[in-house]
Amino acid sequence: MRSAVMTSDRERAAFEAGIKLGALYHQWVGTPVSHASAASVEMAIEKAVILQPCVEEVSVRLNRDLMIPNRFGYSELSGPMLDVEIVTRIGFAYCRAQLATSDGYPLMRVVECHEISPVSDH
Amino acid sequence: MRSAVMTSDRERAAFEAGIKLGALYHQWVGTPVSHASAASVEMAIEKAVILQPCVEEVSVRLNRDLMIPNRFGYSELSGPMLDVEIVTRIGFAYCRAQLATSDGYPLMRVVECHEISPVSDH
Amino acid sequence: MRSAVMTSDRERAAFEAGIKLGALYHQWVGTPVSHASAASVEMAIEKAVILQPCVEEVSVRLNRDLMIPNRFGYSELSGPMLDVEIVTRIGFAYCRAQLATSDGYPLMRVVECHEISPVSDH
Amino acid sequence: MRSAVMTSDRERAAFEAGIKLGALYHQWVGTPVSHASAASVEMAIEKAVILQPCVEEVSVRLNRDLMIPNRFGYSELSGPMLDVEIVTRIGFAYCRAQLATSDGYPLMRVVECHEISPVSDH
Repeated sequence: MRSAVMTSDRERAAFEAGIKLGALYHQWVGTPVSHASAASVEMAIEKAVILQPCVEEVSVRLNRDLMIPNRFGYSELSGPMLDVEIVTRIGFAYCRAQLATSDGYPLMRVVECHEISPVSDH
Repeated sequence: MRSAVMTSDRERAAFEAGIKLGALYHQWVGTPVSHASAASVEMAIEKAVILQPCVEEVSVRLNRDLMIPNRFGYSELSGPMLDVEIVTRIGFAYCRAQLATSDGYPLMRVVECHEISPVSDH
Repeated sequence: MRSAVMTSDRERAAFEAGIKLGALYHQWVGTPVSHASAASVEMAIEKAVILQPCVEEVSVRLNRDLMIPNRFGYSELSGPMLDVEIVTRIGFAYCRAQLATSDGYPLMRVVECHEISPVSDH
Repeated sequence: MRSAVMTSDRERAAFEAGIKLGALYHQWVGTPVSHASAASVEMAIEKAVILQPCVEEVSVRLNRDLMIPNRFGYSELSGPMLDVEIVTRIGFAYCRAQLATSDGYPLMRVVECHEISPVSDH
């Protein structure tokens, strides 16, 4: 089949990791947040991400140091606050990816893709 | 001053209630949700809304009956799932407003605005 | 009927103005934007807002001076970039409201509410 | 260097395509839209996506047949309305991906990844 060779499981796992990080970023940036509510936001994001197909693991940490209260005493969740690591899987291929701040700018990157050998059946 | 008479505290309380409901709707609709994660999403929304200025009270309930799993086993939070009541305050004026489903369509409405008399100072 | 007296058309017009500004803010903040695309974003926001019930007029201007390119040559639409004026109407009552930046912080406020007299029918 | 072999340009191109589609989906779903405004929304989305790093091409079409007016005469942009094709590039590797509706459900998928040979330098 042509379609079978036009992309690999590793590439599709990387694609899925990108979808989840891109969606998460635009879903949650702008949410009002404070030191007191940060843990509940982290948990809600994790629970929303883990529901989605191909997600094996996700961890979300919000950088409290960047939660500088505005004149009303709260902050809005911003990209640089997000520290996320996700593992996605297609078949026997895994992708580990991150959203983390580099030089003050939130960057998403693939940490590694790898494929394990299926157990031999003889 | 003209500006003092161009709007009332009751109107401003209603305006603030509208801001919070409009923001909440567009912030959260689309979030992956399931029966298992619904409570954490309700709590995260409440904690985000209560942080904002002029908010006295907020309650958020998600209608689990509408969480019909897609082929991947989860739903996306949709407007009709949201049942929200909020009380905002400006000075001595309060506004109680709702986001609730009517005929299958999510509607926002003012329940009541009222202004209490300040305690006499003599 | 009690419910008829629990809120006024002016209050409801203010509530609708709040809904539209709150929704607009959370819908559009985060969108990639540049000097080249700013006009198309302004037009898309105006066309989306004017579709909604109770909206009589809306104007959206994005402050290009705040569109400082990131390392990839674009910006994300942020609250302080937004300069919005909206007029909502319920019956014969109107509310004019703004989203504008004050001291670097995006603020929403009611400019004025007023009610015109219906034409006498005798 | 280990990190050089932990992922390929094709995988990173697929990751970037996923980021853009996931972000686009959560950025735009919920926007009020009608037949009259659909073209301006398509253009605004395309202009926002093309600004982002690694994007070579993008086309966005909204299915007008799904824009069934609510009681107020407009629709909200929903996932199934979106028909998007994107090409991303890292080095000499390209990824073509789609967001399209299948059985009524919006699906994102990699169409193909490929890598062209650099021009020989001798």
